[in-house]
Amino acid sequence: MNMRIEADSIGTLAVPTEAYYGVQSSRAKENFAITGTNLHPELVKSLAWIKKAAAVVNAQSGNLTAVKKDAIVQACDEIMAGYFHEAFIVDAIQGGAGTSANMNANEVIANRAIEILGGRKGDYRIVHPNDDVNLCQSTNDVFPTAGKMTVLQILPELIAELEKLESALGEKAEAFAGVIKMGRTQMQDAVPTTLGRTFRAYQSFVKRDIRHLMSAAEEMKILNLGGTAIGNTINATPEYLENITAFVSEEVGIAFTQADDLFDATQNVDGFVRVSAAIKTAAVNLSKMSNDLRLLSSGPKAGIGEINLPAKQNGSSIMPGKVNPVIPEVVSQVAFRVIGNDLTITMAAESGQLELNAFEPIIFHSLFESIDCLTHAVATLTANCITGIQANEMICYKQVEESAGIATALCPTIGYQKASAIAKESLETGKTVRELVLEKGLLTIAETDSILDLKHMAGIPAAILLRDKVI
Amino acid sequence: MNMRIEADSIGTLAVPTEAYYGVQSSRAKENFAITGTNLHPELVKSLAWIKKAAAVVNAQSGNLTAVKKDAIVQACDEIMAGYFHEAFIVDAIQGGAGTSANMNANEVIANRAIEILGGRKGDYRIVHPNDDVNLCQSTNDVFPTAGKMTVLQILPELIAELEKLESALGEKAEAFAGVIKMGRTQMQDAVPTTLGRTFRAYQSFVKRDIRHLMSAAEEMKILNLGGTAIGNTINATPEYLENITAFVSEEVGIAFTQADDLFDATQNVDGFVRVSAAIKTAAVNLSKMSNDLRLLSSGPKAGIGEINLPAKQNGSSIMPGKVNPVIPEVVSQVAFRVIGNDLTITMAAESGQLELNAFEPIIFHSLFESIDCLTHAVATLTANCITGIQANEMICYKQVEESAGIATALCPTIGYQKASAIAKESLETGKTVRELVLEKGLLTIAETDSILDLKHMAGIPAAILLRDKVI
Amino acid sequence: MNMRIEADSIGTLAVPTEAYYGVQSSRAKENFAITGTNLHPELVKSLAWIKKAAAVVNAQSGNLTAVKKDAIVQACDEIMAGYFHEAFIVDAIQGGAGTSANMNANEVIANRAIEILGGRKGDYRIVHPNDDVNLCQSTNDVFPTAGKMTVLQILPELIAELEKLESALGEKAEAFAGVIKMGRTQMQDAVPTTLGRTFRAYQSFVKRDIRHLMSAAEEMKILNLGGTAIGNTINATPEYLENITAFVSEEVGIAFTQADDLFDATQNVDGFVRVSAAIKTAAVNLSKMSNDLRLLSSGPKAGIGEINLPAKQNGSSIMPGKVNPVIPEVVSQVAFRVIGNDLTITMAAESGQLELNAFEPIIFHSLFESIDCLTHAVATLTANCITGIQANEMICYKQVEESAGIATALCPTIGYQKASAIAKESLETGKTVRELVLEKGLLTIAETDSILDLKHMAGIPAAILLRDKVI
Amino acid sequence: MNMRIEADSIGTLAVPTEAYYGVQSSRAKENFAITGTNLHPELVKSLAWIKKAAAVVNAQSGNLTAVKKDAIVQACDEIMAGYFHEAFIVDAIQGGAGTSANMNANEVIANRAIEILGGRKGDYRIVHPNDDVNLCQSTNDVFPTAGKMTVLQILPELIAELEKLESALGEKAEAFAGVIKMGRTQMQDAVPTTLGRTFRAYQSFVKRDIRHLMSAAEEMKILNLGGTAIGNTINATPEYLENITAFVSEEVGIAFTQADDLFDATQNVDGFVRVSAAIKTAAVNLSKMSNDLRLLSSGPKAGIGEINLPAKQNGSSIMPGKVNPVIPEVVSQVAFRVIGNDLTITMAAESGQLELNAFEPIIFHSLFESIDCLTHAVATLTANCITGIQANEMICYKQVEESAGIATALCPTIGYQKASAIAKESLETGKTVRELVLEKGLLTIAETDSILDLKHMAGIPAAILLRDKVI
Repeated sequence: MNMRIEADSIGTLAVPTEAYYGVQSSRAKENFAITGTNLHPELVKSLAWIKKAAAVVNAQSGNLTAVKKDAIVQACDEIMAGYFHEAFIVDAIQGGAGTSANMNANEVIANRAIEILGGRKGDYRIVHPNDDVNLCQSTNDVFPTAGKMTVLQILPELIAELEKLESALGEKAEAFAGVIKMGRTQMQDAVPTTLGRTFRAYQSFVKRDIRHLMSAAEEMKILNLGGTAIGNTINATPEYLENITAFVSEEVGIAFTQADDLFDATQNVDGFVRVSAAIKTAAVNLSKMSNDLRLLSSGPKAGIGEINLPAKQNGSSIMPGKVNPVIPEVVSQVAFRVIGNDLTITMAAESGQLELNAFEPIIFHSLFESIDCLTHAVATLTANCITGIQANEMICYKQVEESAGIATALCPTIGYQKASAIAKESLETGKTVRELVLEKGLLTIAETDSILDLKHMAGIPAAILLRDKVI
Repeated sequence: MNMRIEADSIGTLAVPTEAYYGVQSSRAKENFAITGTNLHPELVKSLAWIKKAAAVVNAQSGNLTAVKKDAIVQACDEIMAGYFHEAFIVDAIQGGAGTSANMNANEVIANRAIEILGGRKGDYRIVHPNDDVNLCQSTNDVFPTAGKMTVLQILPELIAELEKLESALGEKAEAFAGVIKMGRTQMQDAVPTTLGRTFRAYQSFVKRDIRHLMSAAEEMKILNLGGTAIGNTINATPEYLENITAFVSEEVGIAFTQADDLFDATQNVDGFVRVSAAIKTAAVNLSKMSNDLRLLSSGPKAGIGEINLPAKQNGSSIMPGKVNPVIPEVVSQVAFRVIGNDLTITMAAESGQLELNAFEPIIFHSLFESIDCLTHAVATLTANCITGIQANEMICYKQVEESAGIATALCPTIGYQKASAIAKESLETGKTVRELVLEKGLLTIAETDSILDLKHMAGIPAAILLRDKVI
Repeated sequence: MNMRIEADSIGTLAVPTEAYYGVQSSRAKENFAITGTNLHPELVKSLAWIKKAAAVVNAQSGNLTAVKKDAIVQACDEIMAGYFHEAFIVDAIQGGAGTSANMNANEVIANRAIEILGGRKGDYRIVHPNDDVNLCQSTNDVFPTAGKMTVLQILPELIAELEKLESALGEKAEAFAGVIKMGRTQMQDAVPTTLGRTFRAYQSFVKRDIRHLMSAAEEMKILNLGGTAIGNTINATPEYLENITAFVSEEVGIAFTQADDLFDATQNVDGFVRVSAAIKTAAVNLSKMSNDLRLLSSGPKAGIGEINLPAKQNGSSIMPGKVNPVIPEVVSQVAFRVIGNDLTITMAAESGQLELNAFEPIIFHSLFESIDCLTHAVATLTANCITGIQANEMICYKQVEESAGIATALCPTIGYQKASAIAKESLETGKTVRELVLEKGLLTIAETDSILDLKHMAGIPAAILLRDKVI
Repeated sequence: MNMRIEADSIGTLAVPTEAYYGVQSSRAKENFAITGTNLHPELVKSLAWIKKAAAVVNAQSGNLTAVKKDAIVQACDEIMAGYFHEAFIVDAIQGGAGTSANMNANEVIANRAIEILGGRKGDYRIVHPNDDVNLCQSTNDVFPTAGKMTVLQILPELIAELEKLESALGEKAEAFAGVIKMGRTQMQDAVPTTLGRTFRAYQSFVKRDIRHLMSAAEEMKILNLGGTAIGNTINATPEYLENITAFVSEEVGIAFTQADDLFDATQNVDGFVRVSAAIKTAAVNLSKMSNDLRLLSSGPKAGIGEINLPAKQNGSSIMPGKVNPVIPEVVSQVAFRVIGNDLTITMAAESGQLELNAFEPIIFHSLFESIDCLTHAVATLTANCITGIQANEMICYKQVEESAGIATALCPTIGYQKASAIAKESLETGKTVRELVLEKGLLTIAETDSILDLKHMAGIPAAILLRDKVI
């Protein structure tokens, strides 16, 4: 391979002649051969967005020539269109608070701009990675800004999938509104409910999680761009400081604001901790629901068996005909991953020191992974599980009818102690609560019919009863 | 000890004749000898609050006699005034989703009410723990409601301490506004700033955490009271269901609302996860700041030594005169505890099954501990550390003057590469950046004075310079 | 209250005249009002053990008078016997790497020794907390040593409870050896097994956890006593350094050894991280088993219902006759706590800096809590749950007989694909696998009897079949 | 693309004609589009290893024809040589306890064997994925076995890198043995030590971690191969059960043993939890050391500055000449990731249910990532940081000389209280401890020379003093 020689304050290094990246990216690649995973594509695009905005604002204030600006803008536009991502060679986990990622962007953009202007790559007299592409910027403000922009690009995809899930759950809640089933507390038979209400409760938490994710995302709109090193705005021109946030907002179509306290915004990363916490909370709820779905579909013979999940693949390499709840299982696994990532992010945030958090790369890597994986998990949950769930109405009903849990409804009439005795006897003898109440002459038939009316106890509205022709 | 015999569906049990608790509390105490710590006092009071409200609402609807109601109300008022807490004997960590805690309250209130009415403890014909005190209630709605009420009682104390901290930090930011010091990124000299801005950045995050804690607390105001078992409102009268939330709101002075979906509100505990996450995030920020304070006060000779923390106690049993940053150290330790508790809460929430989360006791125990410990940690941080911090101005200034970090300011004029060479030479030779710039004739004296003006670089406003007589 | 005045390098302070603690304990109490929980009683005793050993060794080498030694030894013996613990007033979570705990011990022992020698408390000319009681010691070596000794005192209690559990599980494995039941993977019917094997598998992991806990405890026997400050043995006499570990070993009856590298042993606390990890792993296994017990006992009607857990208390304040799996529930809650504590300990260990880990107090507090709570949880699990578990043999058997899972046994004979079709048809039609095989003429009756022999499939040895009169 | 039609119990599906994978892999790929990361290459190889061993053993017992066996063995050998990995299309995170991974292996091997035997892919009459390749196996035993084999392949790489690190630290300990420096506790000056001892302490923990990793790996050698579904050995022939473990041992060159309790070994995954815990503990220690390195190299002017880390890349995009501790930073980030992964693994293990842990895929994915990333982090730490560290001897010495910490050495002679006064006065006046002792006539010059001898206090052996010509 033909090589060109580049120099930095460490010394000189040979770089492939045709490489868009330069000496600093090369050193970083060697220093940080950690995961084999490069920067998230949206992070790369976000870096390009910032560089483009800076170039335009710097040109407006006369700090950058129009020629350089045009070349930089074109290079950035190309990166945003998906080109040159293979030149972003640095590992997602890197020391240096993102300097390597930022310099990788600076070098690629400079070299592409040089190329556009007819120069040879590496001839930084034409366009310089630091003096031109990084003008008025520092990794300290560019990298966290790019991280926030990335969150704002990929989080809406998670929210969109959650909205689809919410809608699918709502449809099931509607469809199953008349299916009487046993409600359980602590895995023990409690009092009747409907399968519809079960799915409605799931729908309710998804709605809430969507709201909280949107709220957490708001904090991502507060940028420290212009703060440059440590937030003291050194080397940022007043024009840049005044205009950069507005320009980025217009460009990206998101109403960003400049942080009131640029020092705080540079050193404290609690905004990312909050976004991760909101995602984690959603994951907790989703895993709880997935666990429920596995319980309710357990069996088919030796389990609860109230619902059937759609069969999506063979369940076993040895047991014929076995179908497993693989989709809820993968959702819980992703939830465990998201919770682990939340811890990683928490520790990285806590370990920040003085004017900068050096651990942003692992924060971003973990956060983006949480968002992406959960997005995919929710998508498969909706498409491959929820929408195909079917109710085993007879099993549901039979379990309620035989249960002693309905003795609860007797309490207001005969008291907790007598009701307890009935429940106990029912379990011991196998006689139903209804039989025992009548046998013992505790209530008349009419009273019993009224008090032990399962449809009423389960709280099914008359409209549903009519719709489902239960009455 | 004289004993009375009580019975439940398990069998009979001897209880001390004079005990306000009864058979169910006794069994729970035996079953759950886990931590030796009983219920949080505010949780006990919250249970009493709910029981009182229920009694009043039930009396209004004619479901409870005025005599019983009055006795129950008096018993609850006494508990809220701090009496009879020793009769709450169940362990904070208990199986059963809080049933033992709820029954402990029901039994104590019943027996105290019986006593008020002239009966003998244990004679539940007079006032019955289940049929009267627990009327229209289930542990499923009472316990989470009590948990939320407790959070709303103790979280404001944390917020109040954070407000004091914020104010103390603001005062330091003001006092140190003119103290030039080196800013550091990744523990390496970066560019100048002021000690005032350092404390302002701390103040900024505290403000933000207060706002987020208040926001997270909002969700605690949505109650499932009236949902009784699993949220299906079984055995709750329509009057009760309609009035109980409003009555509790009025009584407690907090605008509670009834959850739209009582099933969701009974089985999903993400509200507690969110409160814990908000507390955790505050703890992360506080620990980061504490870490900074220990770094900045390191020394006194062989460290950074920019600030002195007030000496609060001897630092060593063997090393004379040693004073350690014990207050920031305890804050970080509490932060680690809070983060551990957040994990416990997360796992407990994820493990909920079907219509109820059986693990609320550990959620509450961990959450209340997080709030209380962090409240105390912040209180000692403000009183015993922040307010007494002093700046070592000379050390701060000298470190900036000798540093090569100020070469950053040369970049716009002489470019990144030349500035790098100056910085490198300064570090190698010990000559200051200023000396080298002049020696090499890169800038005139006037230019150098202007570009390397530390006060300007640190961004100190003229008003502060005048105030502190720096100019 | 009468007060005496004490002084330290911070200044003077009034202490109750009759208090055994002194100025440094008092300051610490004020600085660290965090949890309201004081030092673990075994930690207090361990401190006394060390102080006694040091006094004896120092007297032997002529560094401490026999008079002082005798008084200190008596004071320590009294503390080990449980006296004066109320004078240990410092909070369990404290800044200062345990200095306050160590000084609290030094002060109490000094004052009690002074008292024994006829002096007035606070007259440290008679016996001095630092110069006499703390002679040749530093908090840097005393506190971690006390922590290790405490672990070695309380961990055997956990192990003893695990041994009881293991034995109880073994008995159940024996008793249920002939109970055929459905084995489940991913909550779906798999292939037959026995209830005995289920409990045997639980017994197996408990055995393994015991072994690993014992192994982790070994590292607690390596002490840095004599290392004094930072491990460089400053102010420790050669005689002390040579004899102290042996003396402590003899005194305590545990074969302690002196660390090869006292610096490493002073600054790195990974030994505690390993003990916590071993406890966490046991907790994970125990929670998994507890979860299983709740699944297998779910119902009684609308669940799996293979086993009954002993009824230990009323399950509900509203639902009569309900009995919940409260003991397994509390075990899982303790497991969540232990896992949270493990995280706290991990973070505290990671945050150590340079020659000392300042966060040992929270490490100890969390670790001791994990051990104690898990000890109690295991105790109640054995006594109040495992020993009373009963099998519902008929339910177990019926679930197997009706299941399609047994079609697995057909694979070697008719192939995976045909077996799949049989399984599918069985589930769709409700016909048993046996019926279908015969109906379709795939096997003869004799072949079917042999291949679908549940007892064989479940792997029940002939001896058990004979014992239980199954054959 | 040309397609072939395959069928399973779910229905039919078109698969690319030339694909080695089949219908089940295809369904899994669609169901689990989660991470975009496929199975770890070593996991793929381990699956091939198992399949080969099973084929040979089955052929020996006459259960598989020699023709099929030979074809399967060749296919497996090719996969172990790195071929056909692109046909392993399933996501690393998948529902189904690894069934999809196992079936992907079964399908690829079957189709490659079919191809070898001259058949057309998909013609499973020639070699069947389930009946031939998976003969005598279940995912329940194959997948955990493959996971353990993978750990045993990649963990030695981590250990090898730790050994290199240990050696490099030892060399630094030797080289710096005579460099006197201040020891610090709680970031405050304590007593003198040497830089050599600092690195020796690091070396000591690395040795210990290596030992514990090796010990944890032992448990990976206990296999449940032959247990098939749930551990009850269904469909495994006696010959297979007896020979498979020995054959795998011989083939792989590791002394595997068969688990005593196959049920336990199938459902409990605590072995992986233990390996993860050992890795986590190593990561904790490494991150603590990395933190120290960043502290000790802080500056260069406004920090501690005792050592210089080798400059590996430009530290800043804006600040010229800045060199940051990027390698220690990346180590800490990897540690945070490893700790997060440990949590994920812990939760997945705890969530196992009944006879199988369905969450092994996320356990493996997280564990393998922890091992790989930590391996790479340690490699760069040794090569790019430790070996190039240089001591700033003058700074080290000066910090000790000026410090008041050395007053500790006075305690045995003049008592703690007087020594405290000296220390305090030294800090207030700037006079050295030595000056004050002499000034006050507390000791003679000779006594002072002896007691305050820094070399002695730091514990430098005479041999080192001679070697380094300090004396």
